[in-house]
Amino acid sequence: MAIKQPDPSRRPAPNALADVLSKLAARFGNRYSANETIRQQHGHTLTWTPNQPPDAVVWPHSTEEVQEIVRLCASARVPVIPYGTGTSLEGHVNAPLGGVCIDVSQMKRIIAVHTEDLDCVVEPGVTRKELNEYLRDQGLFFPIDPGADASLGGMASTRASGTNAVRYGTMKDNVIALAAVAASGELIRTAGRAKKTSAGYDLTRLFVGAEGTLGIITELTLRLQGIPESISGGICPFPDVKSACDAVIMTIQTGLPVARIELLDRLQVQAVNAYSKLDLPDTPLLMVEFHGTEAGVAEQSRRFGEIAGECGGGPFGWTTKPEDRTKLWQARHDVYWASCALAPGKKAFSTDVCVPISRLAECVEETRRDIDATGLLAPMVGHVGDGNFHLIVLLDPEDPSELAKVEDFLERLVRRALSMEGTCTGEHGIGQAKQKYLDEELGGGALKAMRAIKQAMDPLGIMNPGKLGEV
Amino acid sequence: MAIKQPDPSRRPAPNALADVLSKLAARFGNRYSANETIRQQHGHTLTWTPNQPPDAVVWPHSTEEVQEIVRLCASARVPVIPYGTGTSLEGHVNAPLGGVCIDVSQMKRIIAVHTEDLDCVVEPGVTRKELNEYLRDQGLFFPIDPGADASLGGMASTRASGTNAVRYGTMKDNVIALAAVAASGELIRTAGRAKKTSAGYDLTRLFVGAEGTLGIITELTLRLQGIPESISGGICPFPDVKSACDAVIMTIQTGLPVARIELLDRLQVQAVNAYSKLDLPDTPLLMVEFHGTEAGVAEQSRRFGEIAGECGGGPFGWTTKPEDRTKLWQARHDVYWASCALAPGKKAFSTDVCVPISRLAECVEETRRDIDATGLLAPMVGHVGDGNFHLIVLLDPEDPSELAKVEDFLERLVRRALSMEGTCTGEHGIGQAKQKYLDEELGGGALKAMRAIKQAMDPLGIMNPGKLGEV
Repeated sequence: MAIKQPDPSRRPAPNALADVLSKLAARFGNRYSANETIRQQHGHTLTWTPNQPPDAVVWPHSTEEVQEIVRLCASARVPVIPYGTGTSLEGHVNAPLGGVCIDVSQMKRIIAVHTEDLDCVVEPGVTRKELNEYLRDQGLFFPIDPGADASLGGMASTRASGTNAVRYGTMKDNVIALAAVAASGELIRTAGRAKKTSAGYDLTRLFVGAEGTLGIITELTLRLQGIPESISGGICPFPDVKSACDAVIMTIQTGLPVARIELLDRLQVQAVNAYSKLDLPDTPLLMVEFHGTEAGVAEQSRRFGEIAGECGGGPFGWTTKPEDRTKLWQARHDVYWASCALAPGKKAFSTDVCVPISRLAECVEETRRDIDATGLLAPMVGHVGDGNFHLIVLLDPEDPSELAKVEDFLERLVRRALSMEGTCTGEHGIGQAKQKYLDEELGGGALKAMRAIKQAMDPLGIMNPGKLGEV
Repeated sequence: MAIKQPDPSRRPAPNALADVLSKLAARFGNRYSANETIRQQHGHTLTWTPNQPPDAVVWPHSTEEVQEIVRLCASARVPVIPYGTGTSLEGHVNAPLGGVCIDVSQMKRIIAVHTEDLDCVVEPGVTRKELNEYLRDQGLFFPIDPGADASLGGMASTRASGTNAVRYGTMKDNVIALAAVAASGELIRTAGRAKKTSAGYDLTRLFVGAEGTLGIITELTLRLQGIPESISGGICPFPDVKSACDAVIMTIQTGLPVARIELLDRLQVQAVNAYSKLDLPDTPLLMVEFHGTEAGVAEQSRRFGEIAGECGGGPFGWTTKPEDRTKLWQARHDVYWASCALAPGKKAFSTDVCVPISRLAECVEETRRDIDATGLLAPMVGHVGDGNFHLIVLLDPEDPSELAKVEDFLERLVRRALSMEGTCTGEHGIGQAKQKYLDEELGGGALKAMRAIKQAMDPLGIMNPGKLGEV
């Protein structure tokens, strides 16, 4: 599947580019690099699409420095590509027109924690684990957990979510305000710290998920949660995916405030058992977690067990002991490596779609049949409370026939989700790899509006070019 | 306080306007009116700003008819102003340049209810009470409750919220997708029905709160909730506003999932007692509600009572009996009329600000002192779990000195909220009356971005002109 690339005539003039790079080198010293290995590392690594390195990488330490870099680049129409930890999954940090990668990983200050307001203000290079370590003593946590220890700026830019979005929402629900450097170099502050506002267009939500194509996020005000008094978690086997999905629907519909509800299909369970030396039942499983008071999580766990039973699953074994829960979720967090171990030597990449939960069982089952018919190896794991599931596809990207097979499969997967009123991506974003589906998903009116906004806010087209419906 | 008005040279040419009106009259028959009383009713009524009627009103029955009207108006640069129930509070439906009011109140179809997915698809003229009546038999409800029985299209356009936003969020959190007619007449569909998506710019959130300045919403996909098994509610007196606010902060911080937590100041309590013939304690009160299982709400109510006691308030009397709760909330819903009754003959209008809850007590107390010093009559009621509070200001708009006093007071109120990292409006919107504060609140970068977006999506400036930072 050919990735549509931006018109190469948009590349900056070589002299102008060289001039910008030498100015950046002089200004930033050892916080500037044009080393090839480093450039390659800042092109994309976690996808099947080819790596496209930037011309140079700069590590700013402040909003003002980001403004300085953007202004300099804008003066010569040099593209700027923001970079956090490089864990995005759809080619978001590739530099198809070259340009300057702005690596925010050294912007790591936690500027303020307002415990009474349950919010904090951070720089974009802080990762979610770093933030949670910092917060732990204060009895607070930031709930969004996309798996990777991603930077918070990157998580905002891709509208990330993860295992507990079913309870706490996605990045769109947990960014109260942000500051972003616009294509002109000007700073945009989207909101104050009030929990809600009706003051003007929702620029916060416009930058969340914009994949760096409208500006570079340099500060985030995030909503925090109190660490729950008690957490219960457990595993529940089901005879098939359908009955597991039925239990999910009933759980959500009953209003049980489940904090996590993850589906592992049978192949995924087998992979995890082999890799993590576990003896989970050899069937589709739900991994479930509740947050609340001791009495609350006990009541909720019992009710979930009843629901599972009514749907043909169970028994639901649950615990509130931290060490047992940690072991349980370790298995969940190991799925990527467990999947890789299914086919040593192959490359694993992760893709996602999301459908209304009423269609989830059907979508998952059809997809499983498709995988089996195609002969691919692709275990499945899903944030099923949201109707969102992932396939970890194992392939040899050097084998053109296998690559073609995967590409065809991905296309069928997306079309299937769209035909069920779903989306081509629940939480990974569009990046380069899913651009072709945007029009199909939303129709021409939405795409025209997106392009009009992009053109208005980045008239020179320098902000992360070639991503999110731009080409 | 003079409302800044759009340049009158933007008014359509009289001949072109007359031509559009005669075409609309011919096309829509008795669903078209240029009657003066009707036009006045469609100019703004619930604020202190002068009424500015449109040149005509049309009642479309479908998205296609809205497209037809917008295309016709665009061809002659005639403004279009969307209208639901006319209950917005900051002059949103005034027609400062004249033009055609598109009254969507006859677009009332409930297109689909997906009980398994907890969502529904509705036309914009359905009101929240109509929707909830329709849903009741299915055990579902739509939680957003701004007080007035507003249209759902209007609630989306002003990013409304209300008493239970503390638990269920605002319109931004409860609109899954929408369809809007753009200034060109083209239809924009912002998303499918998946519970989350990372596919492209968040156009849904861009239209929510855009006050009709980017397009006219003609369809909404809304998130629903299961009707809770049990609801407990009660009233808790506090010696002063500060201790009530302390209890709110502790409640939120403990993670108690309060569904509603409303503060009435002493003047408001006195007004409600007099009007609704109640004998509530003559002190600041919190009105609190919990949703959940029977055991859950009992546990939560007990814990709230303990918190209130620790903060110097109480006793917290609560009940799960529907008839008692109804009486309780009737008092809350009567605050507007109860306030009016404090000064017969005067006009009451409602304004709101929102601050981080750590600053709420301070903001409320300073505001109360300011009111007393100014000699205004203005009871206070607040959605304090969100840091959002309202003043119902009683005034005679024909008395210039009183009007000036109120305008000065409003300015101080907003500046106070902004100095505490809050917003000039938590849920009413900008409309005409708060335009001057947008720049002060967000700074020039944000305003420039908003104007660039407006210009890109409505190059002729015909969509609800003179609102939300446009002038």
